[in-house]
Amino acid sequence: MGKVKVAAFSVSLEGFGAGPNQSLENPLGLRGPELHQWFFPTKVFQSMHAGSEKGTTGIDNDFAARSFENTGAWILGRNMFGPVRGPWLNEDWKGWWGENPPYHVPIFVLTHHARKPLEMAGNSTFYFVTEGIEAALEQARKAANGKDVRIGGGVSTIRQYLQKGLVDELHFAISPVFLGEGENLFAGLNLPKMGFKLVEQKQGEGALHVVLRKG
Amino acid sequence: MGKVKVAAFSVSLEGFGAGPNQSLENPLGLRGPELHQWFFPTKVFQSMHAGSEKGTTGIDNDFAARSFENTGAWILGRNMFGPVRGPWLNEDWKGWWGENPPYHVPIFVLTHHARKPLEMAGNSTFYFVTEGIEAALEQARKAANGKDVRIGGGVSTIRQYLQKGLVDELHFAISPVFLGEGENLFAGLNLPKMGFKLVEQKQGEGALHVVLRKG
Repeated sequence: MGKVKVAAFSVSLEGFGAGPNQSLENPLGLRGPELHQWFFPTKVFQSMHAGSEKGTTGIDNDFAARSFENTGAWILGRNMFGPVRGPWLNEDWKGWWGENPPYHVPIFVLTHHARKPLEMAGNSTFYFVTEGIEAALEQARKAANGKDVRIGGGVSTIRQYLQKGLVDELHFAISPVFLGEGENLFAGLNLPKMGFKLVEQKQGEGALHVVLRKG
Repeated sequence: MGKVKVAAFSVSLEGFGAGPNQSLENPLGLRGPELHQWFFPTKVFQSMHAGSEKGTTGIDNDFAARSFENTGAWILGRNMFGPVRGPWLNEDWKGWWGENPPYHVPIFVLTHHARKPLEMAGNSTFYFVTEGIEAALEQARKAANGKDVRIGGGVSTIRQYLQKGLVDELHFAISPVFLGEGENLFAGLNLPKMGFKLVEQKQGEGALHVVLRKG
């Protein structure tokens, strides 16, 4: 069976995984993009989002590439899918990523409001799960068919899966930035007590990569 | 006039500056020593505490050396001075550092309980200040005579000076470790809003060094 993993998730030096006040204009929250400065220049990002063959190929790119390897399904909190809150007024919103999202596997979106599956180009189909995080994981595991399930975020979603003891591996990109405020990933969570051990750390060009694993 | 600075202060990836349950046996709190793994092998530490001429001379050592440069006085919270709580029963406790502490300048210890100054070898005299953090800073500035005042810690002391807007420069050594619990340096503090800007970052052999400055 595949792992349940968090990968290439950026946090600030204070532990913030997103800035405050997420909106259509600021999908990552205020100053949120600063968390991802290590990722944007990589070849992985450039080929995925900028249609470019260029991009860096160093340590940051290696970790970015690894985060997509062997991933059979994703789980996203609803705010990762879009800025719409409350009931879906229509089906116009199709995610932040345009016609061909970078997933290419099934994506399970946690929401309190039912919506029928959304098929996008490149095998990225979004399924909207209203039965909670464990049901979403069950569906994602089935869809992943032996590959890993990647919890994409945001902070609240990752924290919920951690608190239930459902995550096997964590890779954080610690960005050299102080946001001042935002959503704290670590507050009140005792990762060592949950059984996580730091198994890898490597300084990339733009972030410090740390990998924790249970066991 | 010299700066008021925090320097070479180690924090975990969650922002903990010390482990929990500080005691005579665990002056840095449980697992606290793991925060300082970058510092122990340096030539600065080795010559200061181990009477050795050996030690590393790389980036970590450079930052360790810088933290002592131009320092004219120190301020320490009482728990940095020792494990005794409440009134001083006697004057037997003379700090963690033996006969010749590594300061060699006046040290101002914040306490609620008066005690006469303690002169140690090598010009390290401890003054016990009962009138609060601002009085301690005033005395330390005077003693520093134009050089910097270094706030040594612990977490609570640094936070109090930050909250009063009295710190000019911060250098943290971000250690690649998750402590799980401890004293959080950053919780509820908005460093950018206080006017701090990240002016330097460098990955050392054992820690990520970040320097923030006001202005």
